[in-house]
Amino acid sequence: MKRPLDQVMTGDRHASLASDNWSGLCPEALESLVAANSGSAPPYGRDPWTQYASDLLRETFDHDADVFFVSSGTVGNSLVLAQLLRPYQSVFCHEAAHIRLDECGAPGFLGSGIGLTPISQTLDGRMTLSDLEAVLEGPKDLRFQPPGALSLTQSTERGTLYSPAHIQSLCATAKQHALPIHMDGARFLMAATALGLSPAALSWQAGIDVLVLGASKLGGGVGDAVLFFNKSLSQGFEYRLKQAGQVSSKMRLMSAPWIGLLEGHHYQAHAAHALEMAATLESSLHRLGIAPAIPREANALFIELGDAVADGLRKMGWVFHGIQVGSIVRLMTGWDTTTATLETFIEDLGALME
Amino acid sequence: MKRPLDQVMTGDRHASLASDNWSGLCPEALESLVAANSGSAPPYGRDPWTQYASDLLRETFDHDADVFFVSSGTVGNSLVLAQLLRPYQSVFCHEAAHIRLDECGAPGFLGSGIGLTPISQTLDGRMTLSDLEAVLEGPKDLRFQPPGALSLTQSTERGTLYSPAHIQSLCATAKQHALPIHMDGARFLMAATALGLSPAALSWQAGIDVLVLGASKLGGGVGDAVLFFNKSLSQGFEYRLKQAGQVSSKMRLMSAPWIGLLEGHHYQAHAAHALEMAATLESSLHRLGIAPAIPREANALFIELGDAVADGLRKMGWVFHGIQVGSIVRLMTGWDTTTATLETFIEDLGALME
Amino acid sequence: MKRPLDQVMTGDRHASLASDNWSGLCPEALESLVAANSGSAPPYGRDPWTQYASDLLRETFDHDADVFFVSSGTVGNSLVLAQLLRPYQSVFCHEAAHIRLDECGAPGFLGSGIGLTPISQTLDGRMTLSDLEAVLEGPKDLRFQPPGALSLTQSTERGTLYSPAHIQSLCATAKQHALPIHMDGARFLMAATALGLSPAALSWQAGIDVLVLGASKLGGGVGDAVLFFNKSLSQGFEYRLKQAGQVSSKMRLMSAPWIGLLEGHHYQAHAAHALEMAATLESSLHRLGIAPAIPREANALFIELGDAVADGLRKMGWVFHGIQVGSIVRLMTGWDTTTATLETFIEDLGALME
Amino acid sequence: MKRPLDQVMTGDRHASLASDNWSGLCPEALESLVAANSGSAPPYGRDPWTQYASDLLRETFDHDADVFFVSSGTVGNSLVLAQLLRPYQSVFCHEAAHIRLDECGAPGFLGSGIGLTPISQTLDGRMTLSDLEAVLEGPKDLRFQPPGALSLTQSTERGTLYSPAHIQSLCATAKQHALPIHMDGARFLMAATALGLSPAALSWQAGIDVLVLGASKLGGGVGDAVLFFNKSLSQGFEYRLKQAGQVSSKMRLMSAPWIGLLEGHHYQAHAAHALEMAATLESSLHRLGIAPAIPREANALFIELGDAVADGLRKMGWVFHGIQVGSIVRLMTGWDTTTATLETFIEDLGALME
Repeated sequence: MKRPLDQVMTGDRHASLASDNWSGLCPEALESLVAANSGSAPPYGRDPWTQYASDLLRETFDHDADVFFVSSGTVGNSLVLAQLLRPYQSVFCHEAAHIRLDECGAPGFLGSGIGLTPISQTLDGRMTLSDLEAVLEGPKDLRFQPPGALSLTQSTERGTLYSPAHIQSLCATAKQHALPIHMDGARFLMAATALGLSPAALSWQAGIDVLVLGASKLGGGVGDAVLFFNKSLSQGFEYRLKQAGQVSSKMRLMSAPWIGLLEGHHYQAHAAHALEMAATLESSLHRLGIAPAIPREANALFIELGDAVADGLRKMGWVFHGIQVGSIVRLMTGWDTTTATLETFIEDLGALME
Repeated sequence: MKRPLDQVMTGDRHASLASDNWSGLCPEALESLVAANSGSAPPYGRDPWTQYASDLLRETFDHDADVFFVSSGTVGNSLVLAQLLRPYQSVFCHEAAHIRLDECGAPGFLGSGIGLTPISQTLDGRMTLSDLEAVLEGPKDLRFQPPGALSLTQSTERGTLYSPAHIQSLCATAKQHALPIHMDGARFLMAATALGLSPAALSWQAGIDVLVLGASKLGGGVGDAVLFFNKSLSQGFEYRLKQAGQVSSKMRLMSAPWIGLLEGHHYQAHAAHALEMAATLESSLHRLGIAPAIPREANALFIELGDAVADGLRKMGWVFHGIQVGSIVRLMTGWDTTTATLETFIEDLGALME
Repeated sequence: MKRPLDQVMTGDRHASLASDNWSGLCPEALESLVAANSGSAPPYGRDPWTQYASDLLRETFDHDADVFFVSSGTVGNSLVLAQLLRPYQSVFCHEAAHIRLDECGAPGFLGSGIGLTPISQTLDGRMTLSDLEAVLEGPKDLRFQPPGALSLTQSTERGTLYSPAHIQSLCATAKQHALPIHMDGARFLMAATALGLSPAALSWQAGIDVLVLGASKLGGGVGDAVLFFNKSLSQGFEYRLKQAGQVSSKMRLMSAPWIGLLEGHHYQAHAAHALEMAATLESSLHRLGIAPAIPREANALFIELGDAVADGLRKMGWVFHGIQVGSIVRLMTGWDTTTATLETFIEDLGALME
Repeated sequence: MKRPLDQVMTGDRHASLASDNWSGLCPEALESLVAANSGSAPPYGRDPWTQYASDLLRETFDHDADVFFVSSGTVGNSLVLAQLLRPYQSVFCHEAAHIRLDECGAPGFLGSGIGLTPISQTLDGRMTLSDLEAVLEGPKDLRFQPPGALSLTQSTERGTLYSPAHIQSLCATAKQHALPIHMDGARFLMAATALGLSPAALSWQAGIDVLVLGASKLGGGVGDAVLFFNKSLSQGFEYRLKQAGQVSSKMRLMSAPWIGLLEGHHYQAHAAHALEMAATLESSLHRLGIAPAIPREANALFIELGDAVADGLRKMGWVFHGIQVGSIVRLMTGWDTTTATLETFIEDLGALME
């Protein structure tokens, strides 16, 4: 038995374009984790590092939110939905929402039976206002789980972005029906950077009540952060986390990476790099005659490759995922994607297309 | 807003005796976390570090167990119990078991209604065979949740140890009633070191089916490990973890600290140090005329201080917990407890007792 | 295969004293069930019989309550508690409460993990104000499920009665801690008759928010009724019932027996008969030198028989239950208990005691 | 406040064609309920009537099944699925299955998070073998809830029938993947009568493991019956029922109506009448130029009426439901549908179509 090499997959073809979560912590996040590890501190989040990370999040969002740290986006999304809904209610979300398709039924389990109602089926992953209105004004019946919350994803599952105005219109409609609004922000900071807008403008100022903020896709994290902008909704949430086994003994190791990410706005530089790499990749694909199947707005590219070419790339060692719509595949760049990796990819792809 | 000092609570009086989970990662665990962070690797536990940590656990226990990593002992215990029981069944455990008293109902929540039946109420925290037999042979009735598993804690909530023979007798009785056996091993490696026995001898060789192994009390971890020695019981557990939001994107950061702890048996040195500190503390207390309220067998000391003295110590900055039996308080040593801290404590205590 | 005799257990020794739920529907309840069965009517409770039964309940309690019908007291209690609490909270109830000891964990299952915290351990089954206050003012900690509701049982598990003043004081204390109050009223109408008080005086006027009202112990029912006096707590409860499979297709058959029981206050006559039979039994036992182990206040008698006598009676065909406190057994009278049955019982008992 | 008339909705236009569950108990079922009500009997299903009804069901199905009685089809289906699956698994069922669309998320709630995966979307409501095979052989991924059971409905949601051969082929495929098979038999006895086949041929002989058998649509019941043909799957189900509040105190009133329905095969006569009425209705519609939108095979007719005509009928007092596919509406006949009702309906319809 031998310890893996310290850098296990640094070959150009293996530094995957599969997802922006193949990377490790960025240097700043790792540095603050190491710093926070030192010495003795109260467990279960009562330590000064967790307090400081919470304060940085409040500063970043310019809002006195209630902040909690959780071990994954899935558990964060699900426990927030469990908090917002009763088991007989349903979350209204896009057909392609991660909470609906990719979490093995976590909201239903941790929410003790809550439903997930698909609203829009748009290819670009954005819910339309008319779809939401149609469902909210449709017939009610005891047979159907009534709406209990609206859930939006920023950036969307298809790499597109909601504008503040779009979010506002959806939230306003939801609030007319007394629905609280959850945002799955696995790539929220990427979206804010791409739009050049403040985190506040895209969240509470647009009507979002609770944000589950991911960092693992930006080199930031062991886990996620939950921000209740609407503090009337957070009552008892600390007990809910405890009951779900989410109050980590070594909470400071969960919260500290956020410090490195947020101090000095380091996340913006990392996001900007990922976005630049995505733009570079888009241009290079364009030169090969490949246009995006969905407009690229952040760090994900969706393209039609055809099965033969896709298989060829996979045989060469590239990893990427399909989305079960036609033969569209997704390529993602991250904070640590290199130009060299992109060049090798384009080279390999070009060779296959000849 | 200012970053906390790197070492926030290193004053002698603050390097708490409250619990062995106030410490950070030990140097070896931190080193392997940092190493594992480097480069690109598949997310969700499909990385080589997680594989290597699993192999090390199998080697440590000399058993080809199914190994999983979870973000806390609470979530590990609860999901294992959810796996072993159906919601209408009950876990038979000691009255003082952590799963019963200290997890905010996590087994009932994650187990969708499973019960927790107290068996023994012994002060030393060990379940007796006769208590277990009495309950298992008692009347059955549809009104009562029938037993679905036996749960033991090693070391116990009261710092005592189960001998292999004791575990064997309890497990044999449970198996006669077709009950699987769960062990809460938050301090299992401490117990093995204290007894000078192999991890195997105290677990699967004695009849344990599933062990939830903690490391955070030995400087080892962001989270815990789950070992199914009885592999017929682990079917589908990976989906259960996913549904509970426990399949971490950055799993390598959860699993890697185990590598540092287990390679070269570093955990034994850390446990031995904590045990030596506890023995030193016991001797010092003895010189002050204070005898243990419960025999000390590992790194926890339970003593009667009286309210005035306890309050006095707290005012001086010491932190420790009571156990709601008389005025008994618990003092714990850890891998990073120093002689200087113990000396200051004894000095402060002596001053108060004059 | 042969149909059972129409009257299967009418022998004096078999017309059990085990519980007041061995009887069938009383004549008036059966008559209204048969009447309601006639003709075509909307399913799922949208029929005029269910409406009329609801109105009769509102009239009986002199309150414009929200009324629902459920198939059992267990499911009624559990779904009400699920409605009042979040999964991380706990119901504060007497140690001997039916919801805690006799429902196979139903509140935990249907409440998705809610806890049940025993408050008083009095032999007479009544919670004391000082016990409630002590727990509510005790230390809080993330490890313990915080209180989410108070639950009282009228008449109690031990056949005693809460006075309006006693209920008021407990409810007032609960409300100071913002806790809603549930009442398990499996024998509520018996209690009201025994106390000679109005149903209103013992429920909403004393501070009860939600009552789960049983009828099966008074000859009244296939199932129970749920009355939300505090209508702010009933929001969405109809969906909760639907999701728990409690919106019966033939709801009119569930609701109609209530009509016979409530019209003309027939329940009072049936309760008065059961109480008279209990008083007769108490006198007869007194003549045999047997005093109640718990003061008799309604239709249940708790006495110490000694194992030999109890076994002798069981061998003669009598059925009754112990309560796991010493060798106390419970004898209950019902709306259909006859003097002849009591005389035979006393005769048999006398013979065994010689 | 006045008691409703005994026969509330017997006007021709009100004896609804909305569903076969608007009727009351048939005379034989009512007679056995009344008979069983007499005298004293043990509660919670330990009475001789419940025993006899269970025996009759075993005789009817020619199988020594484990039999349980539940208060509704919804709770029966959901608790059976909870029994067959773990929370992280999914039920594979037709897109239009009642458990998926019409039970307000009951399987997810009572199954603590189990999923419902739509397999076929056929208009006739039957799952095709190729659809099932495609899904079972599709890619597996931790993100998706894996299959835990197959669920079929007989007769289907669209009034069609599965042949024994069709059921066999689906069950055989499911068993190759180790999946148990649940049948929602809300109208199973209607289907058996329509096909002229024995209940055995359509259930266990074709591979069904567990049947939830409805009676309320045939004049038979307060609740449903659950038959475990595969008795290895029923372990502990009695506790599950208790925990879900389904062990009724007056169980004999739930079970007795089955006696009247099954003794002398009365259900066949009632089903035959409903089928004859459906055939008459189909012929009459044919004469008006209206053909079924889905082939009629049992007692449900699906026709396109157009919104104007449908609205006109509703204004005249007729009640019927749409199915959210085009403007198709459903008409159902029952054991108590009269020729007079059908004639009035056709007359009204004819007038509107002129």
